[in-house]
Amino acid sequence: MNTVSRFPIPELDALPEDIRARIVAVHEKAGFIPNVFLAWAHRPDEFRAFFAYHDALLDKKGGLTKAEREMIVVATSAVNHCHYCVIAHGAILRIRAKLPVLADQVAVNYRHADLTPRQRAMLDFAVKVAQRSHEVNDDDFAALRAHAVTDDEIWDIGAIAALFALSNRMANVMALRPNDEFFLMGRTPATA
Amino acid sequence: MNTVSRFPIPELDALPEDIRARIVAVHEKAGFIPNVFLAWAHRPDEFRAFFAYHDALLDKKGGLTKAEREMIVVATSAVNHCHYCVIAHGAILRIRAKLPVLADQVAVNYRHADLTPRQRAMLDFAVKVAQRSHEVNDDDFAALRAHAVTDDEIWDIGAIAALFALSNRMANVMALRPNDEFFLMGRTPATA
Amino acid sequence: MNTVSRFPIPELDALPEDIRARIVAVHEKAGFIPNVFLAWAHRPDEFRAFFAYHDALLDKKGGLTKAEREMIVVATSAVNHCHYCVIAHGAILRIRAKLPVLADQVAVNYRHADLTPRQRAMLDFAVKVAQRSHEVNDDDFAALRAHAVTDDEIWDIGAIAALFALSNRMANVMALRPNDEFFLMGRTPATA
Amino acid sequence: MNTVSRFPIPELDALPEDIRARIVAVHEKAGFIPNVFLAWAHRPDEFRAFFAYHDALLDKKGGLTKAEREMIVVATSAVNHCHYCVIAHGAILRIRAKLPVLADQVAVNYRHADLTPRQRAMLDFAVKVAQRSHEVNDDDFAALRAHAVTDDEIWDIGAIAALFALSNRMANVMALRPNDEFFLMGRTPATA
Amino acid sequence: MNTVSRFPIPELDALPEDIRARIVAVHEKAGFIPNVFLAWAHRPDEFRAFFAYHDALLDKKGGLTKAEREMIVVATSAVNHCHYCVIAHGAILRIRAKLPVLADQVAVNYRHADLTPRQRAMLDFAVKVAQRSHEVNDDDFAALRAHAVTDDEIWDIGAIAALFALSNRMANVMALRPNDEFFLMGRTPATA
Amino acid sequence: MNTVSRFPIPELDALPEDIRARIVAVHEKAGFIPNVFLAWAHRPDEFRAFFAYHDALLDKKGGLTKAEREMIVVATSAVNHCHYCVIAHGAILRIRAKLPVLADQVAVNYRHADLTPRQRAMLDFAVKVAQRSHEVNDDDFAALRAHAVTDDEIWDIGAIAALFALSNRMANVMALRPNDEFFLMGRTPATA
Repeated sequence: MNTVSRFPIPELDALPEDIRARIVAVHEKAGFIPNVFLAWAHRPDEFRAFFAYHDALLDKKGGLTKAEREMIVVATSAVNHCHYCVIAHGAILRIRAKLPVLADQVAVNYRHADLTPRQRAMLDFAVKVAQRSHEVNDDDFAALRAHAVTDDEIWDIGAIAALFALSNRMANVMALRPNDEFFLMGRTPATA
Repeated sequence: MNTVSRFPIPELDALPEDIRARIVAVHEKAGFIPNVFLAWAHRPDEFRAFFAYHDALLDKKGGLTKAEREMIVVATSAVNHCHYCVIAHGAILRIRAKLPVLADQVAVNYRHADLTPRQRAMLDFAVKVAQRSHEVNDDDFAALRAHAVTDDEIWDIGAIAALFALSNRMANVMALRPNDEFFLMGRTPATA
Repeated sequence: MNTVSRFPIPELDALPEDIRARIVAVHEKAGFIPNVFLAWAHRPDEFRAFFAYHDALLDKKGGLTKAEREMIVVATSAVNHCHYCVIAHGAILRIRAKLPVLADQVAVNYRHADLTPRQRAMLDFAVKVAQRSHEVNDDDFAALRAHAVTDDEIWDIGAIAALFALSNRMANVMALRPNDEFFLMGRTPATA
Repeated sequence: MNTVSRFPIPELDALPEDIRARIVAVHEKAGFIPNVFLAWAHRPDEFRAFFAYHDALLDKKGGLTKAEREMIVVATSAVNHCHYCVIAHGAILRIRAKLPVLADQVAVNYRHADLTPRQRAMLDFAVKVAQRSHEVNDDDFAALRAHAVTDDEIWDIGAIAALFALSNRMANVMALRPNDEFFLMGRTPATA
Repeated sequence: MNTVSRFPIPELDALPEDIRARIVAVHEKAGFIPNVFLAWAHRPDEFRAFFAYHDALLDKKGGLTKAEREMIVVATSAVNHCHYCVIAHGAILRIRAKLPVLADQVAVNYRHADLTPRQRAMLDFAVKVAQRSHEVNDDDFAALRAHAVTDDEIWDIGAIAALFALSNRMANVMALRPNDEFFLMGRTPATA
Repeated sequence: MNTVSRFPIPELDALPEDIRARIVAVHEKAGFIPNVFLAWAHRPDEFRAFFAYHDALLDKKGGLTKAEREMIVVATSAVNHCHYCVIAHGAILRIRAKLPVLADQVAVNYRHADLTPRQRAMLDFAVKVAQRSHEVNDDDFAALRAHAVTDDEIWDIGAIAALFALSNRMANVMALRPNDEFFLMGRTPATA
């Protein structure tokens, strides 16, 4: 076993060109290669599908803010005890929200985090989708609409919780290790 | 709300061509349009990513048999109480395994189903990934290897459980209704 | 171990006359001997008590319909993951309700089944009795009365859930196998 | 509501003769009428079936001692938080075991009670049947056989746990109140 | 292992004078030495801190009655399955409340105990603190204030539940055995 | 409500001298007053008992290292979802262990943290004490002794888990807010 994943990590040069290009691009932008890219590249088709799904939900324009999308990732990944996703998306949340303490608050117990009532309602729904989706009912939709959350946004909340239900389980099976760089990102104005 | 999903169902003619083509193809093959295609088409990018992921895992050649892949879907969807996935993939399992009682056995309690010891070990792992992935450890891998399950197959088991963790949550949020056709498929030699 | 139960199955000729007669009668009516009769006959006194209790609740005239009584059996047996009871009473429910898809809906997640609001309230109560009877309180009774469920019917719902709490546990301890015949019964108009 | 049950308590004179006779007999023997008899008499057929089942298991000769049968009742009724059964059968256990502290030990946490290893294994199985019967497997049977528990005794343990799964749920639905007399019975040599 | 605790029990003469004096005093008052004093004396500093905390909350004047403080101990110790605390504080509750059946009622299922609505609300809160303190919210405070429970009393309820969260865990780790004397205390007017 | 706690925060000048002195001392050492001191000072006797208990276990010489003691606090506070304790003791753990990533690893899922096998066994026990202390048994002690953990150290592990069972519940009831300073402490060599 390497220290990144229980499964093999491919050589960059051996990867299909589109996957290699994406990894090179993220390396240039972030200054390091987040381990999730290396680990998923073991399966190119699954890599493409996963990041296509990810981009469709996390980089979407309009509706939820990017920080709110990351809050959903952190809150649901925390209840699934996923190392990689809590640490890596915690860093992204700190940067997107420009709030150095929010990510740790959400990870430990979102009920005590510095959220608006609307954001709190969003995370209540997201965590229900993560843990008891079979009990989701019309009352849950009504509670969100009472905070002016649109049906399109409800889909997004549910879909992000669902995508990270997948991602958390894969990362836990892989024992995917977060890069050390994530732990310090966004913790001070200089790094945000 | 229509009777298929809590969210809008697009008109076929209004869909992007690649999505429309896939739906037409499945209609021709199955004789009806499984509701999952119509419901996910509300979001074309997510539709493409979801079915790309699905095909990479469920239609994969070699390793696990197609019936075994469907067993994993049914067992994990049952613990998530997902109507659509248990009913629809139960039908596919009956057809792929050519065993009319297996799907219902797996759905109620896979521990009492007519499985080989190797298949039983596979479902033990899949259900652990579905419910307690944060406790997956080296002993789980050793138990599977003792049944000659390869690491490549372990990835597949984990990945199918993870993909349907996503799918079950989306279907539960949508209140996605299985087509009536699924209930009877594969229950007699004539329909299998 | 035989394939029906972990415990011995008596010879029909060795059984007390009343038990043998009941088994012969059910055989003539159904065309096969449901395994529950053979397995419980290992203990004649318990056989008599169990079926006396069963008949008092499932064959009772008035109040809940016979289909509603079977819905309660299927919903509570599903949360107890009891093979025999979900499969066998699912078949009976299909026949009594003349609805080929209802039993599978109730077994996977009764919250998404095609039920009246009154039936939904009945199953909410039945499942609470099955899983958290120590939390049953006056509000539960009020919720049922709001749907015009009488106290006599509330007793019936609770008692059926309680009887199958017994039955599910015995069947799980026995590893009681449902007869293959049950899987197809009531799935088409011809068989209902 | 009377103070004994949420449901009506019949007048003794209005009861069928066999039921009235049993209640008179228990009154003469115990010096009071345990509320369980009055509450179940609301439904004569269910009364007869319940006590027939009860007598078949609790008064059975041979195999488990009567004290051991009551231990199983107390341990499983405690995990179901059933007032009537823990208090009433706790009293009977004190009397049958001639051990004034055993019943309270078993009710709070049987793992720390003064039991033989064989009795401890019996209660491990009984509590598993009470809480997770769908996970009962061959290893559970092997563990009991290692303590020289026969298959006939395993049936008894499972059946007593199953019968009180029924009884606890009915008592919780009824809010069945234990008679004050039970609290003090068997607590000193004079009362045992 | 001695029969009192998994850990060593110090000789009285070897104890620091303040601890020895407290144990002598309780011996004189109660007529026996409750095992909790002997077991905790293995660690004098922890002994002093524990009993200082205990006295600050259980012997406090004003606000909750002493019986109500003991109810909280018994209800929360029961959900933690702590032998010592349920048995010993059950005895104290019987004596303080002068009600011989209340302690056993609270231990089995406080929802069916003979409590005032205000006491019931207090135990609902205490058990929530014991089991799901991370979900305590403003609604819980409002529910208690609606029963005229002051904020100072809410602190006490929470603090007693919290102290016995500690005490129950220590007693369970020690396998701390309750003295036989406790089982009979307060069960009749003469002993209360 | 102030932003620190649901309960009143006393003025420093109004506090008993010993409590004021301890707060002044910690202020001088840390550069800020950790909110736990202000919140608990609302109840001077409980303040003294709590910190006496805390010091006896966390500042103890010999046996477990100070970093190991903090690991136990972080792991058990995480399963209790306690904001204050995870954030504040996470900071202390980073400083004591001189490992900037360890605290977040332990908080999300200690099973994937960079621990020695002995430390892993310690946290397995601590989390069992936190969540299921009633199931602690001789096998748990044997597992720790196999890693050369002494009985004195086992007491410490259990006692720290027990003390923070108290502390986590109080902090959750108070909605105790961690000081912003904690989030960044010990994350770089300069701050450790």
